[in-house]
Amino acid sequence: MSSNNETLHAWAGVANGKPLVQMDLPLKKWDENSVEIRVTHCGICGSDDHMLSESWGPTHYPICVGHEIVGEVTKVGANVTNLKVGDRAGIGAQSGSCHECKNCLEGNENICHNMVLTYGSQWPCGTWTSGGYADKWRGDYRFAFKVPDNLSSQIAATFFCAGITTYAPLRRTEVGKGSIVGVMGIGGLGHYGVLWAKAMGAKVVGMSHNDKKHDVALELGCDDYINTSNPQDMARYKNTLTHILCTGTSPDFQWAPYFALLVVNGNFINVSAPSWNFPELNPMLLLKNQIFIHGSAIGSPEEIEEMLAFAEKNNVKPWIDVYPMKDVNKVLDDFRAGKPRFRYVLEN
Amino acid sequence: MSSNNETLHAWAGVANGKPLVQMDLPLKKWDENSVEIRVTHCGICGSDDHMLSESWGPTHYPICVGHEIVGEVTKVGANVTNLKVGDRAGIGAQSGSCHECKNCLEGNENICHNMVLTYGSQWPCGTWTSGGYADKWRGDYRFAFKVPDNLSSQIAATFFCAGITTYAPLRRTEVGKGSIVGVMGIGGLGHYGVLWAKAMGAKVVGMSHNDKKHDVALELGCDDYINTSNPQDMARYKNTLTHILCTGTSPDFQWAPYFALLVVNGNFINVSAPSWNFPELNPMLLLKNQIFIHGSAIGSPEEIEEMLAFAEKNNVKPWIDVYPMKDVNKVLDDFRAGKPRFRYVLEN
Repeated sequence: MSSNNETLHAWAGVANGKPLVQMDLPLKKWDENSVEIRVTHCGICGSDDHMLSESWGPTHYPICVGHEIVGEVTKVGANVTNLKVGDRAGIGAQSGSCHECKNCLEGNENICHNMVLTYGSQWPCGTWTSGGYADKWRGDYRFAFKVPDNLSSQIAATFFCAGITTYAPLRRTEVGKGSIVGVMGIGGLGHYGVLWAKAMGAKVVGMSHNDKKHDVALELGCDDYINTSNPQDMARYKNTLTHILCTGTSPDFQWAPYFALLVVNGNFINVSAPSWNFPELNPMLLLKNQIFIHGSAIGSPEEIEEMLAFAEKNNVKPWIDVYPMKDVNKVLDDFRAGKPRFRYVLEN
Repeated sequence: MSSNNETLHAWAGVANGKPLVQMDLPLKKWDENSVEIRVTHCGICGSDDHMLSESWGPTHYPICVGHEIVGEVTKVGANVTNLKVGDRAGIGAQSGSCHECKNCLEGNENICHNMVLTYGSQWPCGTWTSGGYADKWRGDYRFAFKVPDNLSSQIAATFFCAGITTYAPLRRTEVGKGSIVGVMGIGGLGHYGVLWAKAMGAKVVGMSHNDKKHDVALELGCDDYINTSNPQDMARYKNTLTHILCTGTSPDFQWAPYFALLVVNGNFINVSAPSWNFPELNPMLLLKNQIFIHGSAIGSPEEIEEMLAFAEKNNVKPWIDVYPMKDVNKVLDDFRAGKPRFRYVLEN
């Protein structure tokens, strides 16, 4: 569908279960809203693997995944106001939106129902979007953000998906001093939740379904830990948490034990996207606990800007490991084996 | 269990499906926190019928229901600070709480998990609680409220359950000018939701699953109406409502169409307690809409005081019909037939 013959060089998924291979893929058609960057870093997100392995549905192959992208700006269109050649820019899971719907016009572009995802979507010109497992990225300047000077590129990269996904709902629900935030799942997302909530001034409690993450949760900065399979732990935190940030569940999840942990008007915030549903919700259970259930996906451009400034000001330092992009297949194997503590970043 | 032989004279339920009969039932043991009133008015709430007909589970008979009570104070204990003999006082669905748990100590007595309900509960002395289908009520002054001078007793009675149930969550979620509130169910509860939201300055949209309530909704003050079975109505309000107040659902309720009506960060507030569950909740649906689901039951003492002042100040006038208490069985038959427009009040 594209009349464009410019290309990027990608590590592309070509079929479910196959290693990534190097190939050229089309760039979107250049226009005056376009920015192009030379990718220096790209974080590995669980979504990348979901898409490569088709766990959310069929994937259009070949696909170049990666949506925690940072690089050097090499080209800007005439309309671009926020970036210039030579700047460091970052891009997250969203690369475009309609700019016409109510959500877009009110600054909630992350809830645009015609959004362009950074990979697995099509640009209006028809070209399939390509992510950061590549030498370059080209897209809309309104979803490319200047990286603050005091943030390293490798750390900043991970803020563009894992970072904003956890930062935005914690800020929106006013986490601060006096908050007690339970973070369900100490992994690729939860670890950011812990860091943000601590930096916002909250007491933070790591939560997992066994004791395996206990030590690392405390090392990360958690003030305490709940083994959700341990009735004593659950009883100890009854009616105590102002927020639960759910970054992962299991298929046997039930509402009642988690509602019981929350204070009146507390927030249960879901940022996870498993392939199973939350169970039926008893209306009486909901009203007897007087809590809020919230869901949040990535964040708006304004929230991303705010997060970057917050991270710089508060010196938020996620735990990452950096590997050469050329080793991507080996790194993905380790990622799938659950080895990251807590985020992997590929470097060109 | 009670060593007390003082009694009230009640219209009592004696068995599922039987008419109420007049009988004497024990009063709670008098103590210095007690208030006693001569009941002048009692509203009829759906809960009364749920309890009489055991639709929420087995009922302890005999039972005197009614939890929208107003009357004249006839006796006060030494600890009573808010009421004196001769005052008009009102009591809602809650007559006691533990006063020791975190929720109570923080002013959220309505979420006390050891609360004493106005009927169908037991006082600490062992006596079963009795509601307002009676000549008198005796209970804890901390759940009896002075009725403002400019509120009639018959209207005020209905605020103590239907009123506070709808008022509290609308205030808590900051309904005001600029809000667009959809009220699901134009009935015993929804009608109060409409009146409060209008008085708070919101645009209000009545919602029901057919067109039968269209005219009365507009007459009540709704600015518009959604027939939720009409795809055009649902499309017209897509992404528009800041709040949905759910006062009733049907067993085939689905989340997606209602989430689609809400703006980003909008609130779906449930105050209904049907005998079926809300369905499974898709995590992706939750996060892609970025909304809040809230539940709310009655309200705290502080919220009740605030509501009474708000109703007086804003001259909020629910639609009620007043009948003699002695006709209670006939009135209950009409209630069960869905005849109220919108609230029945019994008068002694």
